[in-house]
Amino acid sequence: MSSEGERRVVSGAGPLAAGVIVHGGAGHVDPARRADHEEGCRRAAAAGWQVLAGGGSALDAAQAAARALEDLPQYNAGTGAALNEDGEVEHDAAIACGATLRVGGVGALRGFANPIDVARAVLEEGRHVLLVGDGARAFAERTGLRPLADPSALVTDSARAVWRRAIAGRGGGGWAGGTIGAVARDGAGRLAAATSTGGTVAKRRGRIGDSPIVGAGTLADGASCALSVTGDGESILKVGLARVVALDVERGSGLEEAAQAAVARMLARTGGSGGLVAIGRDGGFAWARSTETMSWAAASDGAVVSGI
Amino acid sequence: MSSEGERRVVSGAGPLAAGVIVHGGAGHVDPARRADHEEGCRRAAAAGWQVLAGGGSALDAAQAAARALEDLPQYNAGTGAALNEDGEVEHDAAIACGATLRVGGVGALRGFANPIDVARAVLEEGRHVLLVGDGARAFAERTGLRPLADPSALVTDSARAVWRRAIAGRGGGGWAGGTIGAVARDGAGRLAAATSTGGTVAKRRGRIGDSPIVGAGTLADGASCALSVTGDGESILKVGLARVVALDVERGSGLEEAAQAAVARMLARTGGSGGLVAIGRDGGFAWARSTETMSWAAASDGAVVSGI
Repeated sequence: MSSEGERRVVSGAGPLAAGVIVHGGAGHVDPARRADHEEGCRRAAAAGWQVLAGGGSALDAAQAAARALEDLPQYNAGTGAALNEDGEVEHDAAIACGATLRVGGVGALRGFANPIDVARAVLEEGRHVLLVGDGARAFAERTGLRPLADPSALVTDSARAVWRRAIAGRGGGGWAGGTIGAVARDGAGRLAAATSTGGTVAKRRGRIGDSPIVGAGTLADGASCALSVTGDGESILKVGLARVVALDVERGSGLEEAAQAAVARMLARTGGSGGLVAIGRDGGFAWARSTETMSWAAASDGAVVSGI
Repeated sequence: MSSEGERRVVSGAGPLAAGVIVHGGAGHVDPARRADHEEGCRRAAAAGWQVLAGGGSALDAAQAAARALEDLPQYNAGTGAALNEDGEVEHDAAIACGATLRVGGVGALRGFANPIDVARAVLEEGRHVLLVGDGARAFAERTGLRPLADPSALVTDSARAVWRRAIAGRGGGGWAGGTIGAVARDGAGRLAAATSTGGTVAKRRGRIGDSPIVGAGTLADGASCALSVTGDGESILKVGLARVVALDVERGSGLEEAAQAAVARMLARTGGSGGLVAIGRDGGFAWARSTETMSWAAASDGAVVSGI
């Protein structure tokens, strides 16, 4: 597996008959914080693997790994999410099942520590694919999920400091990095993908990025692969990054080759950078990025490999 | 051009160096109301053509045609939109520019007669691709667009009656049909697409369908084609209907052939029906549907052709 290099697509691949691969976001991470980002991915991938080892489904494993990453403050998801223009957390998240094509997504969701659980509830109900804003919140409460009594529990000192700089016009607005995601394949060969984020720093209220949109930031299709994407959300939406990879794999491309090509195509067409992790229906996994870093980890049979 | 036939994909095509093609939604339309649906499409296509004839851009033409359809009460968009579970109108809309890949979308937007104008404002600002709910409304007001003093002006007697039946459990909930859309190609060869809808009848508050999502219900890409899609929104999102067509065209498929194949693929993979209108970068236009009807009209050089 290669590494280093900005605005050039690097990638890697490996076998993973059943397992979980997660990412902690593509972007720039201070060298001093890279070990921490990689370690969080290792813990989350291991948490996802525990679900598979206990006989759980790919969907449950992806959700468990995403939850673990949401709960770690170093990522831009769940606790520690980026703040919008009003200094509030609005989460986007999605989860997708490759065996059934079921998807659940939530956007601009306020007040939940684990938006991936709300996305899962949308998927399980099966009536809609994407719920946003107050409607998503009302749906979550109706299904028994409890919002936080104090949403400021989601706001870390670090997120507040980044937001203050952005609002004051001292840089750091826009793409925050640190979106999280997980893809899994279980022993029955079922695929799943989950992605969760706080979006961009000082984003407009109600801004939805690629993460909760099937075919952009999240996709699972038993005919091809499961992917979780991270990076410049508006560019990912414009090119449909996950869809391009899945269609190429469905039509015979190798997973790493398709991932590389799609990330390179986005850079060429929009100037936008990003990365992704993926598991193919054959059990191979791959990652690719055009950013300086993307923390990732893959767990299978109790062994964990990782990088940034 | 063929016609008739439910759950079988029918399609048509023609040349259209510069022009506009619109649709008034795929689904079932009572035979007694079909002439009215087709006539509204003819008027909207002519309105779009007037913009092109006056030297306007494809983007302006698609927006003008979409506005005209939003203002006609027989379609599920703008005035006459379907009502959500609470009996309120929540609009979804998007507009896309093929020359620049710029996109603007709005979802679960309350209180505007012409959501396509709000989507255009999102595109023009260029900061985000999709804004939803109260945030989208606040953005629209900040850009000078005025919400209706009385949002009930959007609610037609027909939409209220359909909603009452659905809420009472007497059928008609879910997919309403009647989404509207327009695609255009101007004399400079630039492509644009616009889609607008009230979504499904008695939908959950905050439900977003395919219309405002680039790659699902709306897409314009100078490398391939511009499309506006209509139909079972959750299925269209799951398969990324517009993206599949555009990628196939980018890689050499004919426009009608790609549209037919993608609509058939959606039916096979999800059981969902729908239709689309498209203009290719070479100026050919095509439509396809797997539904019983889809009203459409194409205008070029002052001549209008249409069907349902």
